[in-house]
Amino acid sequence: MPEVNRQWRVARLVEPGELIGPEHFAWHEAPLPEPADGEVLVRTLCLSTSPAQRGYVSLNRNRQLLPDVAVGAVMRGRGIGVVVASRHPDFAPGELYDASLGWQDYSIQRPRAPESIFSLRRVTDPVRPLTTELGVLGNAGMTAYFGLLEVGQFRGGESLLVSAAAGGVGSVAGQLARIRGASQVIGIAGSDDKCRWLVEELGFSAAVNYRTEDLGTRLAELAPRGFDVFFDNVGGRILDTGLAHLAMRARVVVCGWISVDYAGGAATGPANYRQLLYKRARIEGFVVFDYWKRYPEAQRVLKQWYRDGQLRDCGHVLEGLERMPLALQGLFTGANRGITACRVAPDP
Amino acid sequence: MPEVNRQWRVARLVEPGELIGPEHFAWHEAPLPEPADGEVLVRTLCLSTSPAQRGYVSLNRNRQLLPDVAVGAVMRGRGIGVVVASRHPDFAPGELYDASLGWQDYSIQRPRAPESIFSLRRVTDPVRPLTTELGVLGNAGMTAYFGLLEVGQFRGGESLLVSAAAGGVGSVAGQLARIRGASQVIGIAGSDDKCRWLVEELGFSAAVNYRTEDLGTRLAELAPRGFDVFFDNVGGRILDTGLAHLAMRARVVVCGWISVDYAGGAATGPANYRQLLYKRARIEGFVVFDYWKRYPEAQRVLKQWYRDGQLRDCGHVLEGLERMPLALQGLFTGANRGITACRVAPDP
Repeated sequence: MPEVNRQWRVARLVEPGELIGPEHFAWHEAPLPEPADGEVLVRTLCLSTSPAQRGYVSLNRNRQLLPDVAVGAVMRGRGIGVVVASRHPDFAPGELYDASLGWQDYSIQRPRAPESIFSLRRVTDPVRPLTTELGVLGNAGMTAYFGLLEVGQFRGGESLLVSAAAGGVGSVAGQLARIRGASQVIGIAGSDDKCRWLVEELGFSAAVNYRTEDLGTRLAELAPRGFDVFFDNVGGRILDTGLAHLAMRARVVVCGWISVDYAGGAATGPANYRQLLYKRARIEGFVVFDYWKRYPEAQRVLKQWYRDGQLRDCGHVLEGLERMPLALQGLFTGANRGITACRVAPDP
Repeated sequence: MPEVNRQWRVARLVEPGELIGPEHFAWHEAPLPEPADGEVLVRTLCLSTSPAQRGYVSLNRNRQLLPDVAVGAVMRGRGIGVVVASRHPDFAPGELYDASLGWQDYSIQRPRAPESIFSLRRVTDPVRPLTTELGVLGNAGMTAYFGLLEVGQFRGGESLLVSAAAGGVGSVAGQLARIRGASQVIGIAGSDDKCRWLVEELGFSAAVNYRTEDLGTRLAELAPRGFDVFFDNVGGRILDTGLAHLAMRARVVVCGWISVDYAGGAATGPANYRQLLYKRARIEGFVVFDYWKRYPEAQRVLKQWYRDGQLRDCGHVLEGLERMPLALQGLFTGANRGITACRVAPDP
């Protein structure tokens, strides 16, 4: 066992419109913590990333989701870890858990009520590499699953439009729609390379490069009848354009607004919201943690599809805890493709 | 029987942002029409008004709802009429019908499939004056009923926010929520007089004058927990402010955007749409004609509440076909209170 616990702590908060990156975090080497009675020491194996993490350290704070992370505290992050020392009868060394480990090598964990999203969840029969458990079977997968099927009420035979389609959630949402028998899955992405990847590797029907093509024109060509579900991760102009291409009784799923977080400036609303009346459509927001109790059910389904080869792992894995700030930054610059995770220690 | 059929025909289309009024219509005296075999001649007794009528004669046309009305044609309008001559075995003189009569004294009607919104609907056991059948029991009542209870899924114990609350639909929606056991019914209106009327006559919990009070501050005071349902008839700034005061899992019903129709200028969207995610809420649009087949069911319920004295008739009745353009104009200037109708001929 090493003597130190490497950590990324919050150095300063992110300003509105500012790109999050290494300058917002401070590398710290703390002493290895020791579990007290009823606690366990968990070694971090890999960590996931999520656009929501920017909000935890943002000056423009939203107090309605998870609590903020204070300056000086270890950055919050989910990951897969292995128990290395236990002073709790229900936990044994070597067991794998999915938990809120933080951006650090080691964390002290204690059991919590299972309904708490800070509770430890045992990972049994894991898919390897374990980063897959964090991605297509983790929060990104859960967000795509519940957003598409529960909030969006997506059904076989329907058409899907998904923005940030080459991102973590988008790349799973599009695949799930395909598996569920979509009539059409159209992705919006920011490079020709990503667009090709969506079609050739993930089985999207088509993809539109919003940087080089006229999005409205392309959507009208691709889906003259409009889309039954629009899964939006982006907000801003892309949300507004998508609203002009809804089918009757369409559902628009508001998963996030990564374009707005990055772009800064005054938030604007979707001027085309009036289409909701013409199309008897709805926009609905959701927070995946509301489905926390149902994660196991969704994970069973996704794991089966993954093992069948229907669902691709779209992971983009960076090596080393050192790279966590860059991994998170990549979500906002379009640098990453698929679900971005960081490997902190080798899979056991 | 008179020799002439007085009519309002469309003289010119309404420009974006232009106030609709008498200058858009031309008075015309046509010969009295004669029914052919299978047709009936109906005399108009009273006519309703609806903000949607502006759209039928607007340059900025929306081809997804009812067809437009052409320049030179008789203006479209719903009303109650009485059969004065029949060449159809199912229709007898003296019977009352709710139908698309147009802005004229007499119209030729023929039976249509009952699912057509242009079909004639027999009015039996009518509430008098017949303008009540057009208002609280007519399209305004139906819009409030299905918008609130079906689209908004309003349930007893919940709180309601309604904009344009002193308007036709709003004044019924607020009353329906009260009857269904709302914990709180808050109206937004444009004058102290209207606000008093909502509270004292219609039983709203409170009303906010958006012209003289700070709407956001007042909503925060009145409903710190937010609103379960926001029934919006207005759009623009009021919609955006209402979005900042939603309860968890709130439903926002998009019934219209009368502020935008009248104000003109570029349409803006609700910048606060991100509240939909924080609050797991939704915005949903609807068109009341989609519920056409269920009008009789809703009319039975509303008629019972009306006869019990729980539901007030909020009719504002102008006298004479001559006043139809002004009656419609009043919807956009805030001149009218409650459901505006026009009496064309005395109730038989």
